[in-house]
Amino acid sequence: MWRSRSKIPPNPPLSKGGKGGFPIIGITPGDPQGIGPEVIEKALASRSIQKICRPVVFGHPELFDFRKAKRLTPRQCGQLSAFYIRQATEAAMRGQVAAVVTAPISKERLQLAGCRYPGHTEFLADLTGSRQVRMMMAGPLGAGPLGAGPRLKVILVTIHEPLKKVAGLLTVRSIAETILVTDQALRKWFGLKRPRLAVAGLNPHAGEGGLFGREEGEKIAPAIRFVRRKGVAVEGPFSPDTVFCRAAEGEFDAVVAMYHDQGLIPLKILHFKDAVNITLGLPIIRTSVDHGTAFDIAGKGIADPRSMIEAIRMAVEMARK
Amino acid sequence: MWRSRSKIPPNPPLSKGGKGGFPIIGITPGDPQGIGPEVIEKALASRSIQKICRPVVFGHPELFDFRKAKRLTPRQCGQLSAFYIRQATEAAMRGQVAAVVTAPISKERLQLAGCRYPGHTEFLADLTGSRQVRMMMAGPLGAGPLGAGPRLKVILVTIHEPLKKVAGLLTVRSIAETILVTDQALRKWFGLKRPRLAVAGLNPHAGEGGLFGREEGEKIAPAIRFVRRKGVAVEGPFSPDTVFCRAAEGEFDAVVAMYHDQGLIPLKILHFKDAVNITLGLPIIRTSVDHGTAFDIAGKGIADPRSMIEAIRMAVEMARK
Repeated sequence: MWRSRSKIPPNPPLSKGGKGGFPIIGITPGDPQGIGPEVIEKALASRSIQKICRPVVFGHPELFDFRKAKRLTPRQCGQLSAFYIRQATEAAMRGQVAAVVTAPISKERLQLAGCRYPGHTEFLADLTGSRQVRMMMAGPLGAGPLGAGPRLKVILVTIHEPLKKVAGLLTVRSIAETILVTDQALRKWFGLKRPRLAVAGLNPHAGEGGLFGREEGEKIAPAIRFVRRKGVAVEGPFSPDTVFCRAAEGEFDAVVAMYHDQGLIPLKILHFKDAVNITLGLPIIRTSVDHGTAFDIAGKGIADPRSMIEAIRMAVEMARK
Repeated sequence: MWRSRSKIPPNPPLSKGGKGGFPIIGITPGDPQGIGPEVIEKALASRSIQKICRPVVFGHPELFDFRKAKRLTPRQCGQLSAFYIRQATEAAMRGQVAAVVTAPISKERLQLAGCRYPGHTEFLADLTGSRQVRMMMAGPLGAGPLGAGPRLKVILVTIHEPLKKVAGLLTVRSIAETILVTDQALRKWFGLKRPRLAVAGLNPHAGEGGLFGREEGEKIAPAIRFVRRKGVAVEGPFSPDTVFCRAAEGEFDAVVAMYHDQGLIPLKILHFKDAVNITLGLPIIRTSVDHGTAFDIAGKGIADPRSMIEAIRMAVEMARK
């Protein structure tokens, strides 16, 4: 059984973060029975994290001992997950932390605790009163055609929706707003002067001229025309089965995907261990690991902290910009 | 402009193929104005193809000169594409060729010519009177965790369907039959004694216990239970955004995907240049390139023949088994 080897240091008093390039990063442990506490402890033990930021963990220190965390009921785990997220978000809204980095929660347990959100993203949108939030998933900082391997950034128009509802939920407006939010985020946080964006189609072969579906002509193409008139460098709709390869090879800076698996399947093929989830459209900076609670391996000491390390690095980089 | 440098040799008289490990392989050029003729000519010039089979091209030799092919109308191209497919399929049904390998057609032009099929697969099913055909896409022979890189085989339950229709088209029966067809094909043609199959869910996180969709519980899980009782080694439904990584790392021999892009996005990320399309459930062997007509680069001499070479190699290997 995995047991915390080091004591998590007591949190420093909260103060204005983001100063001097050494930002205070708020971290939530997610479900206490998942691998969140373990990957946080491993990440915070890493020199690459210690030298770039001052981490503040929003969690009860005793739950970093898996034997104690195990005694909680699923509903208590859901309540604690939600409590930590609320605390960290409020601290970020007050400017006490420069960014929030979250470990995985169990959506079912969140609902047991009375939080009717399908995931972190929607919960944070509500807590911060944000109307247009989008989920971006990205390979780690520094990786790219010229760096340590292929890179990909994907942004989702719809997130946690049953597949059969996706086509009906897409609108010209939701697609156009996703493209605009993406363009702004890449300028603001990733230092790109004129991001090159690609938009995936919804249907096989992007509809094959209407034979396999009409959403490309009726919704996606009009949205692209609309944002192009605003000066955004965006192309598409492209065939979903090839646009991600083209972006990974460097042709585009990011791909706007219509639904969860369209974007996350290619992202995880390329960045299975080190992808970072970034919420766009919030008034605060929020990044997250890209994996789940992994209850099956929790407490065994074998969880891989790479995604948590990359999520913290990404948050620090964004906080500095 | 690309021009055939070598004369395509006249076809040898057709005779019973598949003897002595040196099978006769029938090849169709697809749309004469696409890159089909070019990749065929390049593939047939390759020593690796010449030493394993005897190719027979079902096409008018003069159309291998792009300047002549260019004079055709789109409708003529559609008619010729269909004519070649019919000829090659009939030769395979009579046993005159051991397998059919197809170059890309334009589905829109096929429809202009009065052929109301969404693609090769459905056309071949009709020509051969096959009820249960499935599309499998595979990385090239010999590539794998122990070979030249990652490998992936995916089989689609639905193929060329608008995304919004996919959920409604899935049935316990269609999923179960796909799994069974896959199991049989991997035993018969790929020499696997007990193929390890994975089945992807339909919805994000495979439905997350019903929160994001119910098809996993209502259709996919019952189909898996049914075929497991028949002795098939199959597991799932798994979260679509991670199951393909697991298969590519060697945990499964193939993944059954619910829809076109779910399977083809990861396949093309891993095998962008050399994937092969194999039709399962036909009375004949049929493989194909995995790319389209690429009208934009046709006639320029820059088309990559790797997928055609791998499609022929795969057909030869299957014909020998």
